[in-house]
Amino acid sequence: MTDRPHTPTLNRVNIPADLKGLTDIELKMLADELRSEVVSAVSETGGHLGSSLGVVEMTVALHAVFNTPHDKIVWDVGHQCYPHKILTGRRDRIRTLRQEGGLSGFTKRAESEYDPFGAAHSSTSISAALGFATARDLGQNTGDAIAVIGDGSISAGMAYEAMNNAGSEGRRMFVILNDNEMSIAPPVGAMSKYLSGLGAEAFGGIQKMAEGFEDALPGPIRDHARRARQLVTGAVGGSATLFEELGFEYMGPIDGHDMGQLLTVLRAARTRATGPVLIHACTVKGKGYGPAEGSDDKYHGVAKFDVATGTQKKSRPNAPSYTKVFGETLVKEAEIDSGIVGITAAMPSGTGMDIFGKAFPKRMFDVGIAEQHAVTFAAGLAASGSKPFVAIYSSFLQRGYDQIVHDVALQNLPVRFAVDRAGLVGADGPTHAGAFDIGYLAALPNMVVMAAADEVELMHMVATAAAYDDGPIAFRYPRGEGEGMEMPERGEVLEIGKGRVVQDGSDVALLSFGAHLGETRRAAQLLEAQGVSVTIADARFAKPLDMGLIRKLVKSHRAVITIEQGSVGGFGAMVLQTLANEGMLGDSQLRTMTLPDRFIDQAAPDAMYADGGLSAVDIAAMALEAAGIDASKSKTKV
Amino acid sequence: MTDRPHTPTLNRVNIPADLKGLTDIELKMLADELRSEVVSAVSETGGHLGSSLGVVEMTVALHAVFNTPHDKIVWDVGHQCYPHKILTGRRDRIRTLRQEGGLSGFTKRAESEYDPFGAAHSSTSISAALGFATARDLGQNTGDAIAVIGDGSISAGMAYEAMNNAGSEGRRMFVILNDNEMSIAPPVGAMSKYLSGLGAEAFGGIQKMAEGFEDALPGPIRDHARRARQLVTGAVGGSATLFEELGFEYMGPIDGHDMGQLLTVLRAARTRATGPVLIHACTVKGKGYGPAEGSDDKYHGVAKFDVATGTQKKSRPNAPSYTKVFGETLVKEAEIDSGIVGITAAMPSGTGMDIFGKAFPKRMFDVGIAEQHAVTFAAGLAASGSKPFVAIYSSFLQRGYDQIVHDVALQNLPVRFAVDRAGLVGADGPTHAGAFDIGYLAALPNMVVMAAADEVELMHMVATAAAYDDGPIAFRYPRGEGEGMEMPERGEVLEIGKGRVVQDGSDVALLSFGAHLGETRRAAQLLEAQGVSVTIADARFAKPLDMGLIRKLVKSHRAVITIEQGSVGGFGAMVLQTLANEGMLGDSQLRTMTLPDRFIDQAAPDAMYADGGLSAVDIAAMALEAAGIDASKSKTKV
Repeated sequence: MTDRPHTPTLNRVNIPADLKGLTDIELKMLADELRSEVVSAVSETGGHLGSSLGVVEMTVALHAVFNTPHDKIVWDVGHQCYPHKILTGRRDRIRTLRQEGGLSGFTKRAESEYDPFGAAHSSTSISAALGFATARDLGQNTGDAIAVIGDGSISAGMAYEAMNNAGSEGRRMFVILNDNEMSIAPPVGAMSKYLSGLGAEAFGGIQKMAEGFEDALPGPIRDHARRARQLVTGAVGGSATLFEELGFEYMGPIDGHDMGQLLTVLRAARTRATGPVLIHACTVKGKGYGPAEGSDDKYHGVAKFDVATGTQKKSRPNAPSYTKVFGETLVKEAEIDSGIVGITAAMPSGTGMDIFGKAFPKRMFDVGIAEQHAVTFAAGLAASGSKPFVAIYSSFLQRGYDQIVHDVALQNLPVRFAVDRAGLVGADGPTHAGAFDIGYLAALPNMVVMAAADEVELMHMVATAAAYDDGPIAFRYPRGEGEGMEMPERGEVLEIGKGRVVQDGSDVALLSFGAHLGETRRAAQLLEAQGVSVTIADARFAKPLDMGLIRKLVKSHRAVITIEQGSVGGFGAMVLQTLANEGMLGDSQLRTMTLPDRFIDQAAPDAMYADGGLSAVDIAAMALEAAGIDASKSKTKV
Repeated sequence: MTDRPHTPTLNRVNIPADLKGLTDIELKMLADELRSEVVSAVSETGGHLGSSLGVVEMTVALHAVFNTPHDKIVWDVGHQCYPHKILTGRRDRIRTLRQEGGLSGFTKRAESEYDPFGAAHSSTSISAALGFATARDLGQNTGDAIAVIGDGSISAGMAYEAMNNAGSEGRRMFVILNDNEMSIAPPVGAMSKYLSGLGAEAFGGIQKMAEGFEDALPGPIRDHARRARQLVTGAVGGSATLFEELGFEYMGPIDGHDMGQLLTVLRAARTRATGPVLIHACTVKGKGYGPAEGSDDKYHGVAKFDVATGTQKKSRPNAPSYTKVFGETLVKEAEIDSGIVGITAAMPSGTGMDIFGKAFPKRMFDVGIAEQHAVTFAAGLAASGSKPFVAIYSSFLQRGYDQIVHDVALQNLPVRFAVDRAGLVGADGPTHAGAFDIGYLAALPNMVVMAAADEVELMHMVATAAAYDDGPIAFRYPRGEGEGMEMPERGEVLEIGKGRVVQDGSDVALLSFGAHLGETRRAAQLLEAQGVSVTIADARFAKPLDMGLIRKLVKSHRAVITIEQGSVGGFGAMVLQTLANEGMLGDSQLRTMTLPDRFIDQAAPDAMYADGGLSAVDIAAMALEAAGIDASKSKTKV
């Protein structure tokens, strides 16, 4: 453990109400101490450091000016909430961040009344805040609503929909645009250029105007009020901004690390606002911690690290990640197929599309946080003869579901969906779980749905998707490292709708779909240790199903267990429905093992699966129960 | 049949290439004839008349100036495509619009090479057009890409995502903003006000400038070019528009019914454009047909009508529609529960929210074409203690899927989802089919999923949703009329997770979920006519399942057949997975009847269900097969 920072002011704050007794100078001191505390805590836990460091002053100022929890602060994405958690009664647990049984890495309603609306996916905050503001106006007992949203998040269509509606409704509410000129990756798109323009024009002027703010504090508040009025009445730009055109009063841009500016503007806005107000604050991701400010990704997400040097204690990987295997395999396919293009929605490094983009810069498209557009853009490309690969995390692909149905599946266009982060994902917890994609994709006519059992299978599936041109095709694979297998030079093109038998047995069959094959093998070993003969099969396809294989398993085993890293309504459901309609349900004892019907809190993925009843022990127990084998008579006969 | 209009110019046009031989004056004549032909055709078929009449001149001008099908015109929504269909080789079938076996009411790739990208849901056109433009720049054999999008559609987040990306990419492409100041309902939101502002400022000026255009034709083209340059270089506004801020060159607003202006501007744009261009054309929905222009909804969607009078030949309903029952029941609940609020995404009359809005104007929110925002806005309201009912068609709710997962289900917020247009919908065809909601909702932890068997059941479910405050709850119901039942004064609150036995029998059990109960009863009658004793049950809930009821059915019948108006992975799948994991699959012959694994073209709903294998005859046959009863030995013994 590193030395804890010296935090005399922070020590006096247990809840935001304690801020009301502090002077503006003390609030600034508090922010400095809070920053040290965040660095110290995340050095022990790892987490989203850069974003949290960028909003330290803003967090203090918001809680100082507004009356939480009666007023509702909605943090967009929520991964910048560490300073907020420290100020809202959770400092004692801040060093459990993202750990099993610890604090969530995001805002979470169940965790605190100061988290009125949880998040993790981007661009939801303005919609939620408008909900709070509307409920207040309808008589519910809630106060002001403040959405804090980054420049990346505000570029998503959902945020625009909310701004459009809020601007038209005209209710009092606040949107703080936290403009750090980068989301995870540097943001793309016209909106980003536009925001940079606003900043470049006006930020110098504001900074100059604000000079002397802090020296003057704690001088008479009316001095600040005068300056605030200048800020508020838009002395800066003069012409209407895009936000004003949407119906918001625009204030800024201001320096989001200048406590004096923040307090002045927030106080003025709180006093004056009658309708929706957008406050544009420019911040620096990683602010105040040298190693973060100096790094390319501003320590967006870090492992545990040494505070003095910033050196991260990343464990050495045992095998390349699925994501990397995907990116590198796509490059290999694209080298021989000039039609292949890659699309990411603001996650180039998260999806491995950065690898593809380095090799083929003109064939990789980062469309921004815009999953709806990403999918239909890909459909347009496919309709023109290109071969688009859209790489999106399973849980984010939910954002493009209608486009998958309406633009891709219905038109039977050959869009390739690389569904990363399928299954449970560890520290990011339930918001990022890729639980539902098997069902929501396999229900669609024309769709082919695969899942990779390991990284070599992933190579095959990338090759298969590249070769398949008859319609849409999706392949899912998990977060994290592969199994450490020897990798072939190239992936093989799989026969569509054909699974494989991994091991032949006679008593029970374990039919795995996707990356739980390793755990399934361990379950087989447990069963074999009890004298049970086990067939292991890898379905590869949830759609079309390999009914030849499945019929054979059902006819020649006492029990067949399907296993998948997904919810009900997925692979197992497809197997049962097909067998039912063939009248074969009675031919064997069938069980479907899926994620349970609840959301699972963060932990190591293995622990999460065990929590969800999908450990090797669980699988083995299910097989014994289904086959009617008494486990207590182990080593005897089945 | 009415007299066909006199169309000498139109008669010379079979495909768009034929337009190249026409003078500008002939093109104007062609537009007039085309309008008459559209009115005449739709008077025989019914359909989306108003939108099509608004784009007659634009359709002619686009095909005259661009080289389709090499150039790609992408019609947003696609319901304004009737003139386009007539000009692109489909005039001979235009009087089969929306009929079984006839032309689709929307653009459809399978129908014509002139439909490069089908649609029906809104706001996809810019994404698709950017896909075409990008593919062209990557070497695919395709030409210019032109998206035609209405002012309602462009207010959706998806269109904004696409504009943001297209503006940043800077590729040559065209967006025609077809601004008729109303989508289906008058549009809402700040964007709409903004567009009106652009029009109000500049439209008069342009009209004045364009005076004499048509008189001058066919004069030397350089005269027009000069004027076009004035238009193109933005002589109109001066200041940057929102579209320019997003990276588009803005041209307009122009009069979208003035063929001279249209041709001039399109020709200039086609000649000059190096990047993305937005052409803002003001049009009138229903243009040129008096009864349409004079009606409130501008004949958005009409039945067959009399051309001379505009009188629609609407058949008298036998029973109130489900939609109306929903709206009226919600009013009744809201009268005694002041917490209830209603939300619609630009479909107030389609969802019955207009009825609620009339009764409670301050408690009804039309958020625009913004399903993502609608769901999270509702989540914010629910988090504040309000009781939001979100009414969205099943297929459009796909647009808000991630928000349902991430903002509602994960936080277990009591948002009520009124899922209208569940199942097959008739003339609107496969794009509007509500096929997937049972599965994509029932897979989610915390979610309660109901389906109404008839309009009285719908009343009960509205009451149940109003009373249920423990988490999210959804109820689905079909398009069209109810069964004509006697309606109670108020709905009853149902016990969560309890189904009902409609009729007791002993041989086979038919377990219906939702509005196929009527067809299920007819199937039972067919079976009874053959001496089979049939139990009929209405599951009411897909989640939580009434396992007490289901176990009983399985244990006491030779066969149990589940029936639902939805895809695989839904109700039947939930039943099988639950029974499997209780080891009860072998206790009866089980079958799940769902929509088939293909999209079903438009026809009357009954015909579509029959096409999909869900007629009473199909159900009865399935029951006989499952129970092992030989149908040929009818009237003997089972």
